[in-house]
Amino acid sequence: MPSEISFARGVPSLDIVDVEGLRDAAVRAFANDPAGVTAYGTSIGYPPLRAWIAERHGVEPERVLVTNGSLQADAFLFDHLVRAGDEVVVESPTYDRTLLSLRNRGAHVRAVELELDGIDTSALGRLLAEGAKPTLAHVIPNFQNPAGYTLSADKRKQLVALAREHEFIVLEDDPYGELRFSGEPMPTMVSIDPDHVVYASSFTKTVCPGVRVGYLIGPKDLIAAIVKLATNTYISPNMVSEGLVYEFCIAGALEHSIEVVRTALAERARTLTDALRSELPEAKFVAPEGGYFLWVTLPEGANVAALAEAAAQRSVIFVKGTDFMLDGGDNALRLAYSGVTVAEIREGVARLADAWRSLS
Amino acid sequence: MPSEISFARGVPSLDIVDVEGLRDAAVRAFANDPAGVTAYGTSIGYPPLRAWIAERHGVEPERVLVTNGSLQADAFLFDHLVRAGDEVVVESPTYDRTLLSLRNRGAHVRAVELELDGIDTSALGRLLAEGAKPTLAHVIPNFQNPAGYTLSADKRKQLVALAREHEFIVLEDDPYGELRFSGEPMPTMVSIDPDHVVYASSFTKTVCPGVRVGYLIGPKDLIAAIVKLATNTYISPNMVSEGLVYEFCIAGALEHSIEVVRTALAERARTLTDALRSELPEAKFVAPEGGYFLWVTLPEGANVAALAEAAAQRSVIFVKGTDFMLDGGDNALRLAYSGVTVAEIREGVARLADAWRSLS
Repeated sequence: MPSEISFARGVPSLDIVDVEGLRDAAVRAFANDPAGVTAYGTSIGYPPLRAWIAERHGVEPERVLVTNGSLQADAFLFDHLVRAGDEVVVESPTYDRTLLSLRNRGAHVRAVELELDGIDTSALGRLLAEGAKPTLAHVIPNFQNPAGYTLSADKRKQLVALAREHEFIVLEDDPYGELRFSGEPMPTMVSIDPDHVVYASSFTKTVCPGVRVGYLIGPKDLIAAIVKLATNTYISPNMVSEGLVYEFCIAGALEHSIEVVRTALAERARTLTDALRSELPEAKFVAPEGGYFLWVTLPEGANVAALAEAAAQRSVIFVKGTDFMLDGGDNALRLAYSGVTVAEIREGVARLADAWRSLS
Repeated sequence: MPSEISFARGVPSLDIVDVEGLRDAAVRAFANDPAGVTAYGTSIGYPPLRAWIAERHGVEPERVLVTNGSLQADAFLFDHLVRAGDEVVVESPTYDRTLLSLRNRGAHVRAVELELDGIDTSALGRLLAEGAKPTLAHVIPNFQNPAGYTLSADKRKQLVALAREHEFIVLEDDPYGELRFSGEPMPTMVSIDPDHVVYASSFTKTVCPGVRVGYLIGPKDLIAAIVKLATNTYISPNMVSEGLVYEFCIAGALEHSIEVVRTALAERARTLTDALRSELPEAKFVAPEGGYFLWVTLPEGANVAALAEAAAQRSVIFVKGTDFMLDGGDNALRLAYSGVTVAEIREGVARLADAWRSLS
């Protein structure tokens, strides 16, 4: 068997993680604030990091909660807002862990089609007009997981207007926003309507996953309610790790890291799309402008489950489209290019094309 | 106002935290396993730390789950085992956060008196004979929070026998076990009956709170079920922090740290009990053999709420006994001596005695 090439998991490869910068930030954290990083701290997160995030987003610190990764932040928000039977809008396809988390809470998940420019706001409008009363709409606005698509500026305004009119909260789940490598940045929805949008992001894609630092930005009363949940769950999040991230950020290492990651992702995305065009012309996709993922659609009737098996026999793995949808996705797959080198991408696509041909 | 002296919170003072050892461990973690500490890792925790904990406790790694602090570990266990209406046995008094966490889940909390040698197992036996069907009994066996008492060897056997006969799980919540400064260590209950006991501990009291690393040891199938909850909640706990704790442990810094903490706590406990005997002879207590806390009982009818106010006017704070009990505790208080120096203890007790005299 050749060595495994994984397009499966949305993780950065080690070569784009600034390990020395992290080590140096840890040393500074213990030197500059030994009491702050070794104590329990507070449930809102390491206060200097909270203040830094608030300033970066131009909001008051009381609107920010720093957590052990952004999935934990989402879980707190769901615990606070979503009861069994509540309607929750998601994109189709969407992040599999969000789907699972909502279904585990007994939410009535309403999937709305994701178009090339983001969630179909007209379809959502019709759903609402027909009487749907969601408490929450979960949207990944930039370089969506799994599709790689980005919500247009117009649709951002439309979505926020619907939230205001029908009184639901938009969870603007934005871990990839900083990873744009082409095109123009879009305004965040939380900046358009701070009362109806809760913004979530993390340092997983800009620093590294192992620090497990994420955050929420939302209305003060909602953040205050979630702070209580956080206190009762873990007293406080990780102070050592948040102190380290803070030192990493203020030293400028974050901006450098983002630049390294963007450059690498741009090259990997280009390599992947070029290789697919030449090796597997049946694959349809939209080249992403940032982020980790490429969503590939094969011709109607294609058996992606069989393709996954044939690919695995060639030591290539990916995630099937069906994992990201309540229904459908049978002829789609997600390729993550964040954790593979350019050489691995070329070799991986060659093997994938070989697997595809073996099925016909 | 004189400067505040806090007997309120069970936290270590900075002088007994090995900040340099932590910094050096962080540097080694990034040098020795950059891929392991910067990646997501796994929901079971940093695998080398999990293996180290398993070996220290003489159990298989599959029985260990490492979490973001032990309160989070307890929360997972409660999420898995406790449904609204379920009976759960607690000690009276007990840790206020545990009480809150169980009540928030709608548990039917059955408080059983804590005696000088631990929970009243005879009273628990009667409760069970009368038809109580708890799913769980929460017990802090060593240097209990808030009382400082320790469960006797005989009662450990009795409690485990009751758990086996009546088919409930004992949560052996043991953050203080390593902090014994006099007397003989007792066997853990999980070593007596690995099938009916889930053991929880953390590095908060032996390394520092800011690392937020705790763990559970339990039956393999129960740990496997909780691993799923952990994955769905945060993907994985903090790898950077767990890598750091692992390096701290294997370098021998943990044993050194425990020795420093024990020595300091012994001196602080002795200073506190000596000062109370000479300054506030109405205070009754049992001198602890380890841990952070001294439980003080004042004469029947004493108004501890008023004492707390009078003490606060003198910049001394503590937690009232009522916070740790469903009923009673009106004439009791908890003094934490972990976060105060010997000089602060002497001054604090003098002020507390002055506050007491001001009420009569």
